[in-house]
Amino acid sequence: MISLGFIRFLLSSNKKYKKRLVPLLGFFPRKWKVYELAFVHRSASLILSDGSIVNNERLEFLGDAVLDTIIAEYLFSRYTNKDEGFLSKMRSKIVKRKHLNSLAYKIGIDKFIISNAINSNGGKHIYGNALEALIGAIYIDKGYLTTRKFIVNKILDPHINFNELEHRETDFKSRMIEWSQKNRSEISFESQEEYTANEHTPIFVSRIFVANKLLGMGTGYSKKESEQSAAEQAFNSLSQD
Amino acid sequence: MISLGFIRFLLSSNKKYKKRLVPLLGFFPRKWKVYELAFVHRSASLILSDGSIVNNERLEFLGDAVLDTIIAEYLFSRYTNKDEGFLSKMRSKIVKRKHLNSLAYKIGIDKFIISNAINSNGGKHIYGNALEALIGAIYIDKGYLTTRKFIVNKILDPHINFNELEHRETDFKSRMIEWSQKNRSEISFESQEEYTANEHTPIFVSRIFVANKLLGMGTGYSKKESEQSAAEQAFNSLSQD
Repeated sequence: MISLGFIRFLLSSNKKYKKRLVPLLGFFPRKWKVYELAFVHRSASLILSDGSIVNNERLEFLGDAVLDTIIAEYLFSRYTNKDEGFLSKMRSKIVKRKHLNSLAYKIGIDKFIISNAINSNGGKHIYGNALEALIGAIYIDKGYLTTRKFIVNKILDPHINFNELEHRETDFKSRMIEWSQKNRSEISFESQEEYTANEHTPIFVSRIFVANKLLGMGTGYSKKESEQSAAEQAFNSLSQD
Repeated sequence: MISLGFIRFLLSSNKKYKKRLVPLLGFFPRKWKVYELAFVHRSASLILSDGSIVNNERLEFLGDAVLDTIIAEYLFSRYTNKDEGFLSKMRSKIVKRKHLNSLAYKIGIDKFIISNAINSNGGKHIYGNALEALIGAIYIDKGYLTTRKFIVNKILDPHINFNELEHRETDFKSRMIEWSQKNRSEISFESQEEYTANEHTPIFVSRIFVANKLLGMGTGYSKKESEQSAAEQAFNSLSQD
């Protein structure tokens, strides 16, 4: 849980580190320590003198919420005639883990991370999570308005192509059908409807099979919802390979 | 979609309305129109002269995010030694629909709502949603800090018993077992494990039966998770009756 990470944490408090962080942020921090913590992955957690274990997960919790709010406000102002369904879809495209990881790379977060994680499943989202933690750190150090400026100027304006994002397909059933046509694989869905004792709420379970292998499963309050959920699971498992 | 709501909307722009709103907010608004919109339920949507349909759902999208952030920050500062799992659980207890509805009642939101909804399923969360929309309106009118003050002074400090909330049980399986003992009903769980073609990720489906009737169903990546999800669905369906 410690050692390497701890040493690098100590080393990180030097001038060179500070010189690299300032251009990434676009401002000069006051509370350096909180930024250092933002880059400490759970695998390199620090044990403080009072016995408490610290890493970037608390900051990530905070930053995740702040990021959601600032994107919500940005979309609210940008798309004055779109309904909340559209706004909500757009936001989820921006903050989905994969996209957040690539944004974190683009702004150079990866060079600051302190981690002992092997390249395992748990380490996959390490960059996106650290970006959220960094946002939490900026909020703690500088407050809401500076955080807003950071997110808009360093992430949304330079790195998000909103026109492209508007048209990006999120209908996973269609995407899976497209995928199967390209790959000449047979695809099929099986759905069951089950009634609960509370008879007004049927629940649906859907399974998606590709070449007769189960690839995803989902539930929902409509067949459409459960199929989408199953297709999304299958789509994600294919794109992870 | 219109008529009654529209008339009440016009009527609402009077002095009496303003007199009632100011004590609820704790400050004097600048942009009255945005507050009026915050109380317009979808069932009473207005058609503007340019043909666009407006109600409180866009503001609700914004307010929902702002509320999440301010509660995150509040919990982050209040519980300096708790991990993000604890913080996240606490927040979800505060913002769950049922709790938000009762908070909205407590601060008197219900008296402002403009709705044509019959007491149907869709109308159940009307108060909590309007509270979120009101938070969105405050944010648009007065910015982040005033919104923060409103949430802390008018909602969190007077109406949330944090000690009680910390101990409130969210283990739905235990709650369902307790419930069944009290009600002398037999309860059982059935779980299936299914392997997807991507063999590393088994998926679990669990069903919960009360007196041999299916009452809930859930999926998850572990049996514990799918049972919890099924139990939560059952618990919620019982508490809605």
